[in-house]
Amino acid sequence: MDSFSKLKVTECETPIVTVDLDIMERNIRREQDYFDGLGLKFRPHVKTHKIPELTRLQLEAGAAGICCQKLSEAEVMADEAGATDIFIPYNIVGPKKIQRLAGLLERPGLVMTVGADSLDAALAANEAGRLAGRSVGVMIECDTGGKRAGLSSTEAVLELALEIKRQCEMVDLVGLFTFPTELTQTPAFFSEAAKKLEDNGIVPRMFSGGGTPIQWQVGGLPYITEHRAGTYIFNDKNTLGAGACTVDDCAMRVICTVVSRPSETRAIIDGGSKVFSSDPWLTGPAEAKYTFGLVLEYPEAVLAAFSEEHGTLDLSKCTERPKIGEQLTIIPNHCCTTTNMHDQIYGVRDGEIVREFKIAARGKVW
Amino acid sequence: MDSFSKLKVTECETPIVTVDLDIMERNIRREQDYFDGLGLKFRPHVKTHKIPELTRLQLEAGAAGICCQKLSEAEVMADEAGATDIFIPYNIVGPKKIQRLAGLLERPGLVMTVGADSLDAALAANEAGRLAGRSVGVMIECDTGGKRAGLSSTEAVLELALEIKRQCEMVDLVGLFTFPTELTQTPAFFSEAAKKLEDNGIVPRMFSGGGTPIQWQVGGLPYITEHRAGTYIFNDKNTLGAGACTVDDCAMRVICTVVSRPSETRAIIDGGSKVFSSDPWLTGPAEAKYTFGLVLEYPEAVLAAFSEEHGTLDLSKCTERPKIGEQLTIIPNHCCTTTNMHDQIYGVRDGEIVREFKIAARGKVW
Repeated sequence: MDSFSKLKVTECETPIVTVDLDIMERNIRREQDYFDGLGLKFRPHVKTHKIPELTRLQLEAGAAGICCQKLSEAEVMADEAGATDIFIPYNIVGPKKIQRLAGLLERPGLVMTVGADSLDAALAANEAGRLAGRSVGVMIECDTGGKRAGLSSTEAVLELALEIKRQCEMVDLVGLFTFPTELTQTPAFFSEAAKKLEDNGIVPRMFSGGGTPIQWQVGGLPYITEHRAGTYIFNDKNTLGAGACTVDDCAMRVICTVVSRPSETRAIIDGGSKVFSSDPWLTGPAEAKYTFGLVLEYPEAVLAAFSEEHGTLDLSKCTERPKIGEQLTIIPNHCCTTTNMHDQIYGVRDGEIVREFKIAARGKVW
Repeated sequence: MDSFSKLKVTECETPIVTVDLDIMERNIRREQDYFDGLGLKFRPHVKTHKIPELTRLQLEAGAAGICCQKLSEAEVMADEAGATDIFIPYNIVGPKKIQRLAGLLERPGLVMTVGADSLDAALAANEAGRLAGRSVGVMIECDTGGKRAGLSSTEAVLELALEIKRQCEMVDLVGLFTFPTELTQTPAFFSEAAKKLEDNGIVPRMFSGGGTPIQWQVGGLPYITEHRAGTYIFNDKNTLGAGACTVDDCAMRVICTVVSRPSETRAIIDGGSKVFSSDPWLTGPAEAKYTFGLVLEYPEAVLAAFSEEHGTLDLSKCTERPKIGEQLTIIPNHCCTTTNMHDQIYGVRDGEIVREFKIAARGKVW
């Protein structure tokens, strides 16, 4: 891989994914200060960057621990970022994953917690604990509006908790979690579930919510003790569209070159879905859902379509239009998936590349 | 990375991307025989797999050369697959890319051709030729309905060709190309362009079309001398939906595990956009565009949504429904982007893993 060290961004080959380090450091600091001020634990989700050095920065800023979304991500962060408290908010299911979780549990000084929304998943975690000879933390996943995984009734939460108490001697039932936090539904669900659990002698220690767009509104919500967020470290067009950040908070900037001007109203850039991912814009107007990023130099340009290595820009609303060879700076729709397309990204200060970050946990799928 | 050698697929940790080798070998053989039968040159696009060993198989089957979509892909294939004739159907623009192209041109025995739809791009190729002291092939890109890059008038094609003749002494103007082939528009455009060029003393040697879904219909089209296709080696749900293959031709099969059954009509699998990509289904009914793969064991199941590591299955149309822990075999929407999410994929024969293929050109973005 070429080293871009000390080059000006404008001198780099494109496409290239850069991170403005001043912005990123501000995001890390602001986030931790905010949750410290609310008296909530903050647990950054490192799937957004998958970079051990950035995990270290988040931990050094005061994070309570981290989230990973995969066992293999957790291994990388335990090995290379000094992470000692890892929560995987995901069902760990299947014999090989149980073995891998057991391997993590065997590491001295590493606290592991996993998610579960079924007895199968809790028994799997328990089996890992048995193999390792050590207890494993479990948080019960609650669906409080996300309609993805998770139990959608507090009765089911009680049932699972009682079964865990009965059958899972290696499981430490830590508490409840959900994603994302819904401002009324989540505290309502958690409080109702907590009451049922407490009536049965089970006292959850942690109520964990999450999400970057919603985070500025979770202050003062009852029955939340922890917040998890990943995107905030870089921010992106989804976060912008949700009103949860400004362009000046967007640290991730993808640099592309205009390689074709096939018509007055069209440009082609050298970044497509293999640079950005194909993730849509979830927080804009419905008709703009399948547009793919904000071009800072030409904010009226619409990144209207991707092929794998072509980005098609609709310039029809632009008064000024770019030329072939011009560099464009683009805020991607979804920084978490953009990072994962790449083997490395580049830290920038004052327009100069100063760091190369290896995406050490890129492509970790199990 | 764990080795899965000699494991049954059913014993593997998931998610895992497998390639049925019998199916793949049949696809390679059928494709080459088909184009040999038509008397057309066939040039496989290796961006679909990015695997040197598979490039070798395609070349050994009789391919005329290969396509890459990036200079760095070309470097990998020249280094590791013995490729000696590489066409990059893309504008190579910018000083660093010019240097990189020159580096490729300096390799003895390697024939390089690039695309151009502007004088800027042709001059860039020419500059690479000057730096290398060697001529470079250029194919003029024509937009014959693709509405991406390419010149959309034959007048513009003539103009560019004349400028190349005047200013680009290191450029060997090989011919014209487009993507994808449109059955009436492409031959009409090529023949009109050819006539204008020939009237001006320029004789194109190659007329190159492309695309997997359209390929079975290009036989007998006038003014086509070569076809380029990538997807055919694996096929996918896009190719299925276009009627250009059957399920038995789909070599790429992503194996996932059901990790949650949050409701009667929903399952969560351990593969999301970071396993499959978020690419939509382009060849099905409009309302199914944003569904994400075909589940072979439960064909009525709809892969309705992806998060990064969760796939949400809508089971409402299924008479039988999967349990937690069950393995599912999924044909992805778009094999080219699925491959690129991974560092390796696994060759399977008779349900057993027999090969691990490193995706050597994965993540090559410039």
